[in-house]
Order: sequence, then structure tokens, then C-alpha cells
Amino acid sequence: MTAYDRLTARFARIATINEAASMLSWDAAAMMPSGGGAARGDQLAVLAGLAHGLLTEPATADDLAAAYAGEDAWQHANLALMRHAHTRATAVPADLVEAQVRANSACEKIWREARRNADFAAVAPHLAEVVSLVRQQAQALAPALGLSEYDALMDGYQRGIGAADVAPVFAAYGQFLHTALPLAEAIQSAKPAPRRPQGPFPAAAQEALCRALSEAAGLEPTHSRLDRSTHPFCGGTATDVRITTRYNEDDFSQSLMGVMHETGHALYERGLPVAYARQPVGEAAGMGAHESQSLIVEMQACRSDAYLSWLGPKLLAAFGGDATDYAAENLGRLWRRVERGFIRVDADEMTYPAHVILRFRLEQALVAGDLAVSGLPGAWNDGLRDLLGIVPPDDARGCLQDIHWYDGAIGYFPSYTLGAMAAAQLMAAARRDVAGLDAGLAQGDLSPLIGWLRVKVHGQGSLLGFNDLLRAATGKPLDPADFEAHLTARYLV
Amino acid sequence: MTAYDRLTARFARIATINEAASMLSWDAAAMMPSGGGAARGDQLAVLAGLAHGLLTEPATADDLAAAYAGEDAWQHANLALMRHAHTRATAVPADLVEAQVRANSACEKIWREARRNADFAAVAPHLAEVVSLVRQQAQALAPALGLSEYDALMDGYQRGIGAADVAPVFAAYGQFLHTALPLAEAIQSAKPAPRRPQGPFPAAAQEALCRALSEAAGLEPTHSRLDRSTHPFCGGTATDVRITTRYNEDDFSQSLMGVMHETGHALYERGLPVAYARQPVGEAAGMGAHESQSLIVEMQACRSDAYLSWLGPKLLAAFGGDATDYAAENLGRLWRRVERGFIRVDADEMTYPAHVILRFRLEQALVAGDLAVSGLPGAWNDGLRDLLGIVPPDDARGCLQDIHWYDGAIGYFPSYTLGAMAAAQLMAAARRDVAGLDAGLAQGDLSPLIGWLRVKVHGQGSLLGFNDLLRAATGKPLDPADFEAHLTARYLV
Repeated sequence: MTAYDRLTARFARIATINEAASMLSWDAAAMMPSGGGAARGDQLAVLAGLAHGLLTEPATADDLAAAYAGEDAWQHANLALMRHAHTRATAVPADLVEAQVRANSACEKIWREARRNADFAAVAPHLAEVVSLVRQQAQALAPALGLSEYDALMDGYQRGIGAADVAPVFAAYGQFLHTALPLAEAIQSAKPAPRRPQGPFPAAAQEALCRALSEAAGLEPTHSRLDRSTHPFCGGTATDVRITTRYNEDDFSQSLMGVMHETGHALYERGLPVAYARQPVGEAAGMGAHESQSLIVEMQACRSDAYLSWLGPKLLAAFGGDATDYAAENLGRLWRRVERGFIRVDADEMTYPAHVILRFRLEQALVAGDLAVSGLPGAWNDGLRDLLGIVPPDDARGCLQDIHWYDGAIGYFPSYTLGAMAAAQLMAAARRDVAGLDAGLAQGDLSPLIGWLRVKVHGQGSLLGFNDLLRAATGKPLDPADFEAHLTARYLV
Repeated sequence: MTAYDRLTARFARIATINEAASMLSWDAAAMMPSGGGAARGDQLAVLAGLAHGLLTEPATADDLAAAYAGEDAWQHANLALMRHAHTRATAVPADLVEAQVRANSACEKIWREARRNADFAAVAPHLAEVVSLVRQQAQALAPALGLSEYDALMDGYQRGIGAADVAPVFAAYGQFLHTALPLAEAIQSAKPAPRRPQGPFPAAAQEALCRALSEAAGLEPTHSRLDRSTHPFCGGTATDVRITTRYNEDDFSQSLMGVMHETGHALYERGLPVAYARQPVGEAAGMGAHESQSLIVEMQACRSDAYLSWLGPKLLAAFGGDATDYAAENLGRLWRRVERGFIRVDADEMTYPAHVILRFRLEQALVAGDLAVSGLPGAWNDGLRDLLGIVPPDDARGCLQDIHWYDGAIGYFPSYTLGAMAAAQLMAAARRDVAGLDAGLAQGDLSPLIGWLRVKVHGQGSLLGFNDLLRAATGKPLDPADFEAHLTARYLV
């Protein structure tokens, strides 16, 4: 057995432990009675410890030093990703990791209360501690990875792209938005207001419809489940994907578009290369890449005129009511509405990147030490005014709205907009490559799109980093032009 | 940190891994789509390997050799149980364990087909291999545990009682049955036939009723779930118990009594001593003890005249129909019916022990080498004729009916009847100790019984072995007299 063979066995074992943890996390969100929470926390901690132990024990380092993966590009990349994972796991001292777990957990608890009371001061000292520890983490990771400190954090969520790539893309988008947003608003306000279908829409009927649409998009019931949870997500494993949603009986659009979003994530997991299952190179290419797959299904395909023309009659059949409510043109005006708002998760696809750009700028400044935590509310409000021309009335609708920083997740936010832009870029390339893509959507058939994505994205696993994946699939690295063209076609005509 | 402290931490870690595995097993039976099966098998195998590794690594043996638990009875028992678990895990060579896993798995697959075709010859060579390996396992375990070979196997399912204790109890029951069964049949046939409520009984209504009754019996929804699976069981963990059932819309009695049975198991888990959670002494006292808790709820409490008088109106309210069908007297005749049959799992409480006694005798002979696998069908048919006066028409309804032996589980069968007898013995003691126990049942209130069991059984964890647990709770070791008195009162008057 070669060192490389021993490593593939070891990483398969680590991945299998992580699969178990993923299933238990799904259960905690979708099934577990409240009384099981404490024990579940212990179970997940023990599994994480076992996986971390297998990754960091001396035998791993010995084999990584000795291993030769041969000339095959996949094996070569796999070994590089093993070394990368090992570096990330060993670069940060164990006592710093523990301090972060404690500080993040304490801060997140206080944050829930602080957000409720719109009281940033109450959580500020805790956030300062979290940021201080994240900075230490970044300082430990950066030299080991050969990246800048902020990029070393971003790398934990999305490999293969850094702040130097993202900053100009985001800056260009900011400029686009400056002109496009007022124009889109003017065009929108000149059109009739959309008609909103009147409920109630029984949860059971919504669920049946969501299941049918998800399956029609290609997610096999033999390899997936759809359940309910407070916060919708896609979890589980590649052969047993678990997606969740929640049902509002007054408005079916949240569950419907939410499930199609999670279906996009799920199809990515289902399409990962089976030959490299449980190997680093067989995993999804990162959080930005993952978001591109949820958004290409939800935003690009399912909110397209073509798909809505097919969907309308299905909705009418499922819920009854007034057929004019379900006309594609009305659904388009209803579900593609631009609005300047304070809350990122409620934002439309045109203004969403502004929320991300704001956070990207602020978290870079926090990590660099250029912005103190005490200055965050002011910087937030100034930034939002610059980007969207609005100022939140309180910090609950400002810098307290997202859990991420308060839970120690810094470097994650760009992934959302990388995903949105990549989705548009991939869609444009798919339209060039695949005849009949939109004709398919008009029949509710996503298979031409999904088939192309399986080859260009899903089946590529982690062979390439973010920008190289885009380059191979679309002929260029991340470029906001396709996203801007998409928005122009959808909102500015 | 003392050696004992290190051991408690280690065993807590092992228990936490086993909790994760228990949850994943529940998921596999109740939730998992079929496509997840292969990965789930890997996940469970890795977790089992990790737990086994922690138990058998040299540091465990070193600490076990050095540990001193002090004078406290619980800690003393805990250390003894740690040593016992370690002995069981290390006494059997790893290559024998692997050979058993392979042989059991192969045999069980062939058995499914063989049972379908009533073709014992097809599976006989595989069963011979399984039995041969079990005999080697028993030969390895026996000297390490200081037990006979058969008792060493039984010990894997129920500590604290052996064949020498069980044999006379079973022999006495055989004698009782010889007289009691014809008498019960005569009395039963002299009474009017029971009226069977006519369905359909919608699964949703059955489920709602099962939930309500289980909760009324004391199982808190904050610490439990009720779901569906092909084979009903009780799984999960002490703070998050998962019970399952299946619904037949023509007959609600199976789900109803099945759920009360699993509720008995669940209440045992819920009542285990919290101070020793995740320690060997904090676990349930064995499979026989566990079955005593399911049967005391299902057979002793819920099929009692008192409980049925309360239950009848609830059934009428849930399902509607003819009130006379739900009279306690009719429910008693319907759900307490003696019948000589071939199939163990369909047997009533009077004839069930005959099925177990048959298997107890045959598996002892198999382990001792006194019975060859080729002689099993004949010995089975002879034994059933002796015990119940009937002979199965084919081996599918004879020695092929149960999975246990074909999956390598030898020494397990006695637990069912140990449980049934212990349930009657505990019920008799509870009636002596607790005023108003039956008056409570007549109000649907199990809390006087469950309160007593929490003290006498649940809260005792594994402090005592089976016979000592009974002795402490009832004043005597296992004694079939209480079970016979129960049957006499229920069937012979």
C-alpha cells in the first residue's frame, strides 16, 4: 500500500465520519425533539474531534510528505487538496481553535438578544473578542497557505479566488447599480402592480407541489428527502440529500422558490464525481460554486419567463383561484421585483449584491484592523447609504441582522454574490452551448441545463478552484458582465 | 486525573459514538431513501470501528488494570462493567469477528430467499458455517468470562442469569402450559366470539391516538418521536427516544398495542439514572430487562380490564362505529385470545413462551454440538409437537421463520420470555407496594406503575444483573409463579 493509497483510505474515513455528522445536523434541524439538543451537541463534537484527529495525527503528515499521486490530474489535485486540508487543520494552534469555539458560541447567544433589542453595545465586546481571535486565526493561516490574511479566511469557504479578484468585480457592479437601480425602479413603477394570489395555500398542497417540481427538475426521490425546518437548507450526503423548507399558508412563493433553490444545491451534490466520492477532489468546489448552482436553478431557470409560462397552470391546478394571477407576466412582476431594503435575506437579485459588497468591505477592514468594532454601526450606515441610498432606522436592521460575524464566520459573505454572478455567467454559456435550453424551460424541462451543468460543474468536483472552474466552463474567469446583462434583460427593458 | 476518571471519559466517548450510530440506524429504518443505504452501511461500520478501537486500544487495558473505583457501589459496578465490556471485546480474535460479520451477512441474505421458498436445504450450509463460528466465539468468550459457552452467548444479551437458572423455570412453565392451555381453550370457546371493530381506520387517526396514549403513559414529546417503519422498534437515545410503528387501516390494534409496547421500552430509557448517563452502569440492564418494561406496559397494564374500560370510549371517539365493539369485555376477548400457532411473533402471551422454550433448547444443543444443523427441521417439529401439539406444514412456518440464528444471534431468544415473566413478577410486586395502581389504570393513569418502575427498575441502570434486579424489586429471583398466576387470572377463570 502506497502512502497515497493510505491517504485515500484515511480521507474516505474522515469523509464518512463527516457524512454521519451531516445527517445528525439535518436531524437536529428537521426531526429532533428539543430535549435531544444537549446530547446532539456532544455527538457532533465527538465526531468533529474524531475527524480532526484523523486529519492531524502524525501518520497523516508522514504520508503527505511521502506521497506521490502520479501524473493523473485528478489524483494530483486530490493530493494537493489533502495537503491543503492538513495545512488548514494544523496551522491554527489547538488552544486558539478552542478559544474561538467558546467565543463564537458565547457571542452568538448574546447576539440573539442584542438583535431583538437593537442593542449593538450589548454585543460589541463579544464581537470584538470574536474578531480578535479571527484575526489571530488569519495570521496563523496566511503564511501556511501563502495567502493574504483575508484571503486565508475566504479560502475556508471558497478556494481559488481572492479579494484582489473580487474587489474590481464588486466595484464594477457598484457602478452598474448606481445607474441601473433607479432605472429599474422607474420602469417597474410604470407597469401595473402585480396581482398577489390570495390564499390560504394549505401546507400539504404546497409540499406536494414542491416535491413534484423538485423531482421534475431532476432530484430523484430515491436519493433525497424534502422536510420542514425553521431555516431552509440542503444537507445530507451525495447519495442521500436532505432538503428542507418552511410553509407560509398565506404565500406559497417562499416555499416554492426556496425548494427550487435547495434543489439546485442538491443536484450539485448528486452530480459530484462518483469515482472520487469521499475524496477531497470529489467534493463540491466551494460555497460560491454551490451558491451558483442553487441560483442558476432558482433565479436563472425558475424565474425565467419560459419556466413561469409552464409553471402558471401548475399553480392554478394546485391551488385554484384566479387564472390571471398565474399568468407568466403577472408572476414575473410578482417574483422579480426590485426594492431597496435594509435586510439582505429579503433582497431581490439586483440589490442583493449591494448588501454583500457592504459586508465584504467592512469585514476586510475588520480583519486588517482598519475598522474597530465600535465603529461598525457608523461604517455600516455610511456604506449602505453609498450603495443603496438608504440608512437603517436601527442596528437590528443594520449591522446586527446577520448571524455570520457574531458566529465567527468572516470571509463567507462574498460567496453569495460570487454564486449569483457565476450563475449568470454559466447560464449564458449554457445557452450558447445547448440548443433548446429555453424551449425546455418552457416545458418545465430543466434537463438540458442540468445535463450541461453535470459536465461543466457538478462532475468537476474540486478539480479546479472557483475562477478556473468558470474559465473552463465559460471561457473566462468571474466577470460581472453576464450578470449585468441578465439584470438588464430582466429589469431594464 | 485517575485511571478511573480517564476510563469514565473514554466510555462516555464510546457511548456518544454509539448514540450517533443509534440515531443513524433509526434514520435508516424510518427516514432514509433507499439510495442512501450503501453509504449508511459505511457510516455505521466506521462508527462501530471507532467505538471498538477506543474500547480495545492498549491504554484502555492499562487503565482497567490500574483503576480503583472506590467503595461506592455504583462506581464499583461501573468499573466491573467496563472490565466486562473490555473482556468481551478483546476475548474474540479480530479475524473471527470479521469471519462472523461476513458469514452472518451472507447467511441472512440466503435465508430471506430460503424462507420465501420454504427451502431449508438451501440455507443449511450457510447456517452450519454461522453456527460453527458462533461456537468458536463461545469457546473464546467462555473462559474469559468464567461462564459456560452458552451462558457466554446469553451474557451478550442479558447479564446476570444463565441456562442453569432459566432451564428449571422454563421446564416448570412447560408443565403449567400442558394443563393450562387446553383449559384456557375450553373456557374461551364457551364464551361468545369477540366482535371485531370494522374499519377502515385511517392511519392519521391511528397515529394521533397512538401519540396521545403514549404521551398519557408518560412519554414526553419533548424527548421522543413516533414515526413509521416496516419493523416497529424503539431506538434513539435516553434524552431523544425514537419509537416506530406501522399502520394497518383494517385493524388499529397492531399499531396501538405496538406503540404501547415501544412506549414501555422508551420509558425505561427515559428513566435511566442521569448521574450515570453514558456510563456502562447507567445503561439498561439487558434485553430481558428491557422486554420486561415493554411487556409490563403492553401486556400487564394496557391489556388489563381496568385500562380497557378507560380505553374503550377513547377508541369510540377516535374511530366511531358501534359502542358495543369497544366495551372492555369485548376488547378483552378480542385482544387476549389464546391460540396454538406456528409463528412466534403472532403468538399470544400464553403460548409465546412455548416458542421461546423450543428455541432455547435447540440453540443450546446447537452450541453444545449435540444437534447438527441438518437435524434442525426434525428437532423443531418434534419440539413444537411436544410443547403445543402442532407440527408446522413446512419449514417456512418452522425453523426458517426467525432471522435470529441466520444472522448469528444465538442466546437471544430467552430474553423474550424472561421479560414476560419478569413483567408479571414486577406487576405483582408493584400491586403489593402501590395502592391504587389498578384504580389508576381504570383512569388511563399509568403513573403509579411507572413511578414505581422508575425507582425499582429504570433508575437502577445496570447496577444489578437480571436476577439480582428482580430480587431487589420483588424479593425473589425469576419465578414463573407470578406469570402463571397472571395467566390463570386472565385466561382460566
